[in-house]
Amino acid sequence: MVSLGASRYPSRFDPARLDEVDPAIRGNIERRLDVLGPGYLLIYNDPVAFVRGRGAHLFDADGRDYLDAYNNVPVVGHCHPHVVEAVSRQLAELNTNTRYAQAGLVDYAERLVARFPDELSRVTFACSGSEANDLALRVARHHTGGEGIIVNRWAYHGITREVASISPSLGEGSPLGANVREIDPPDPGLVPAGLTLAEHMLDEVRRAIADLRRHGFDMAALVLDLSYMSDGIFPEPTDYLQPMIDEVHAAGGVFIADEVQAGFARLGEDMWGFRRQGVVPDIVTMGKPMGNGIPLSAAVFRPEVARDFGERVRYFNTFGGSSVPIAAGAAVLDVFEAERVPERSERVGRILRDGLRELLADAPHVAEVRGAGLLAGVEIVADRETREPDRARTTRVIDALRERRILISAAGSEVSALKIRPPLAFDEADAARFLEGIEQVARLHLGLE
Amino acid sequence: MVSLGASRYPSRFDPARLDEVDPAIRGNIERRLDVLGPGYLLIYNDPVAFVRGRGAHLFDADGRDYLDAYNNVPVVGHCHPHVVEAVSRQLAELNTNTRYAQAGLVDYAERLVARFPDELSRVTFACSGSEANDLALRVARHHTGGEGIIVNRWAYHGITREVASISPSLGEGSPLGANVREIDPPDPGLVPAGLTLAEHMLDEVRRAIADLRRHGFDMAALVLDLSYMSDGIFPEPTDYLQPMIDEVHAAGGVFIADEVQAGFARLGEDMWGFRRQGVVPDIVTMGKPMGNGIPLSAAVFRPEVARDFGERVRYFNTFGGSSVPIAAGAAVLDVFEAERVPERSERVGRILRDGLRELLADAPHVAEVRGAGLLAGVEIVADRETREPDRARTTRVIDALRERRILISAAGSEVSALKIRPPLAFDEADAARFLEGIEQVARLHLGLE
Repeated sequence: MVSLGASRYPSRFDPARLDEVDPAIRGNIERRLDVLGPGYLLIYNDPVAFVRGRGAHLFDADGRDYLDAYNNVPVVGHCHPHVVEAVSRQLAELNTNTRYAQAGLVDYAERLVARFPDELSRVTFACSGSEANDLALRVARHHTGGEGIIVNRWAYHGITREVASISPSLGEGSPLGANVREIDPPDPGLVPAGLTLAEHMLDEVRRAIADLRRHGFDMAALVLDLSYMSDGIFPEPTDYLQPMIDEVHAAGGVFIADEVQAGFARLGEDMWGFRRQGVVPDIVTMGKPMGNGIPLSAAVFRPEVARDFGERVRYFNTFGGSSVPIAAGAAVLDVFEAERVPERSERVGRILRDGLRELLADAPHVAEVRGAGLLAGVEIVADRETREPDRARTTRVIDALRERRILISAAGSEVSALKIRPPLAFDEADAARFLEGIEQVARLHLGLE
Repeated sequence: MVSLGASRYPSRFDPARLDEVDPAIRGNIERRLDVLGPGYLLIYNDPVAFVRGRGAHLFDADGRDYLDAYNNVPVVGHCHPHVVEAVSRQLAELNTNTRYAQAGLVDYAERLVARFPDELSRVTFACSGSEANDLALRVARHHTGGEGIIVNRWAYHGITREVASISPSLGEGSPLGANVREIDPPDPGLVPAGLTLAEHMLDEVRRAIADLRRHGFDMAALVLDLSYMSDGIFPEPTDYLQPMIDEVHAAGGVFIADEVQAGFARLGEDMWGFRRQGVVPDIVTMGKPMGNGIPLSAAVFRPEVARDFGERVRYFNTFGGSSVPIAAGAAVLDVFEAERVPERSERVGRILRDGLRELLADAPHVAEVRGAGLLAGVEIVADRETREPDRARTTRVIDALRERRILISAAGSEVSALKIRPPLAFDEADAARFLEGIEQVARLHLGLE
């Protein structure tokens, strides 16, 4: 019954166990199962409900404090007062669309675009990362005249039909397009003997282009999430990408950097994942953290890539770029500047990853700690020799942390990499609490002595 | 250079005329042209900027009051204090996603679903009408195994690649899918001699199903906006739909009512357009007015239609159903109840349409006043005998109203129907001001003596 896609959600609630749920929320879950569509899931074996959020902390109805080491949407922290104030003020004044000449829209567009290389000078707003990626693909197809899309083998780019068709991680129930080819992510474990990772990545993209051509598809785009979040978190290394892009350009395609995950300083001091790779994409998309929870996303274009689509097709997104989401986006940039969020991501992220490496150095079920900035992946294995992924153990770790009121999840081809991706409000004290929690759990489940 | 699609926007700003714009906003527009994507348009020959909104009124920086007879998103009125308060409170408390057991999510889902026939009992939330329609199509394809989609000839259903491919009104620059067939809207002017409108509509859907089959496409869905907004506004008559749906069902397809325009009492006392037609759809989608400007949309399903997709594919929408949009949706329903919004739509709509009919009865350039609830279409023609659409005159009327600080737009196959679609906060005084304004304009441009 359960497809590969559905099964890729680590640690989720099984409705058959409703009787075991905390009575305080059982009734709500029972009603939920009756009224929401069947596609909804609850995270964790033991589901949780919150009533309040602050910084990297969530609180339940009994006032218990959960450390949020998972949610990337509230990037500057849950309910950040500056964002709350700016959005509330805008809500009370005006909320109209982009067909009127709003001052705030242009101010924010300029501030956002200023954070990109000069080549990337035009922005279009939407509501979700899915909409931004969907627009990027429409523009890429229109501009190139091609249809071929190359993505990573366990990539996730969103939920519209078009972006679902380039998202293998959704599983067998969700068909890939006939025009879509998959390549390996930059996982050293996938590189054949005798090749460097960079050579293998280039081979992969060449093979995909050739196979697309053989099936009658000219290139439209290579689309990469440079955090490789759903592939298992591989922000390192950073030295292989330009030759792949050159190959795509030579075949007539464009390069789309999907920064929904990597963007907004998730990977440290650089605002965007592509900056760390020393490349300039043709289109960049962004979403989740952009409005700190108010739906806001965008695609930033090289003008020559977007021009004909813009003039011949047009694009009007009712909510995208309207006054309230724009106020949210501007407030997020304010906080990024005032609190030096990228520097904090770099600094606290280093403490977190160094701490994890030190703590888990001798844990027999930990093969590797990966990451950059405030993103860490911990590869859980049956044993270090074979490096066989241990998915059941990964789930146990997630649930054991949740019992200690620490929230994480998992990712990767075998869903065996702990996904540690806190709000960038996560500070030194939060990192210390996290490391304390994972030490306890590592003694129980990861063989730490 | 300008495509059919782009040209379907009535009265828009021509950047070549930048020098003529009000100096107060000229600089902003100049910067806007440099930083926003080329797909953006400004409405009106003489663009306008607002700084404040209340009820059905927008105010510019000089405090001038514009009567909003166009925007459907702020359904209960611009910056309605109850919605502002509820959303601001939620923003300050918590904003998380549907993977946690939020009480507010289930409460709202139940309130929303209670407004549907018993058969439609499952709801899935998203951000925009485009996302909701895109999901509805994914579910319809999955459930039926077919691909064929039937839509109206000038329909608009959104901007993802999938829904753009079923939106002929986007124009020649935006390709329709090979799996898409167009049928006439219920425009009496399109009915061949000797047939009733109902007979013609049934013929249309039969012809489309046969043509799809001939090209190898089994039926997935008939998708209709029951206000026929972009087709030119034809909420009447209401007696032809069930046989069309029966035909679609017999061919293996489902019926999707796109209520992004017609829903939330736009057409009067009935909350949904399909209610007026006495039918029960298989899927209903909704968007724009749902959160009064906070991005929120939904698809409501018959459970048997959504079940397999839900279980095998799943659907997680990051922002859809998160705490703040849900608070906005709940506050809108509060206002609908407290202010009896559907009754107001019916009552004020009747005053508006009766007033228009009376006023324009002898205007030689007006062929017809159509509509239901707070939606009115006024067909502008070169003369009443030929009924030849007069698009240039339509644009002059829109701009003349804008000069009098009354906001409307136009729709229809020839973009020659005035589109009068105010927030449902529009009251008797607003209707009186509107009628006064249009009387002046009708004397100038519609031949009224």
